Amino acid sequence: MNKINISEKFDHVLEYWSPKIIGELNGQQVKLAKFLGEFPRHKHDNEDELFMVISGKMEIEFDDRTETIAKGEMIIVPKGVYHRPIAESECLCLLFEPSTTINTGGEQNKLTKNNLEWI
Amino acid sequence: MNKINISEKFDHVLEYWSPKIIGELNGQQVKLAKFLGEFPRHKHDNEDELFMVISGKMEIEFDDRTETIAKGEMIIVPKGVYHRPIAESECLCLLFEPSTTINTGGEQNKLTKNNLEWI
Repeated sequence: MNKINISEKFDHVLEYWSPKIIGELNGQQVKLAKFLGEFPRHKHDNEDELFMVISGKMEIEFDDRTETIAKGEMIIVPKGVYHRPIAESECLCLLFEPSTTINTGGEQNKLTKNNLEWI
Repeated sequence: MNKINISEKFDHVLEYWSPKIIGELNGQQVKLAKFLGEFPRHKHDNEDELFMVISGKMEIEFDDRTETIAKGEMIIVPKGVYHRPIAESECLCLLFEPSTTINTGGEQNKLTKNNLEWI
């Protein structure tokens, strides 16, 4: 039960699209991730997912529209909704989602990260 | 499923110690609150609680120590742990906790807020 400095924790995130865990509560995890480029379209069948942008900005492409999320903004993507994260330049993002959530959703591919590291 | 600007949402938080809801996911809620002064010591028997400071700073007094949480920092208070939030000057805080969480924990007093408003 120590306080967590979000910016300092980002120093330990060395890869893009590779979320790291910084906290856990009520079966949910707080994760940090750095985004750059495009991530595959995917959905999470059982988990809602929160993206909060800490630095930079990102886009999330939904099937019917695209949202731009900038520093100080957040969005909740409901379970079952296809989405594709895109960052034209580096974006630092805090995620809040159940500890069961896999970054690529129902798809397993080379970007899938299992057994996430705590930082 | 619209993006949420945290700073703009704070414009709708007009009272101290009165959390407002800005999002819900997986049975959890994201809340915003403004703190000034001292809040009664309390605990939540069944809910872990996350405090993320968006502006200013706050202290959380535990029974054995005090933590200072400043802008860009967060802390997770586990269920069952007594804590007392204190803000010497205005502190803007984001809370993440189950939708069942009552601000004063197991105590009902004049600061208890039931049926929180969405903003």
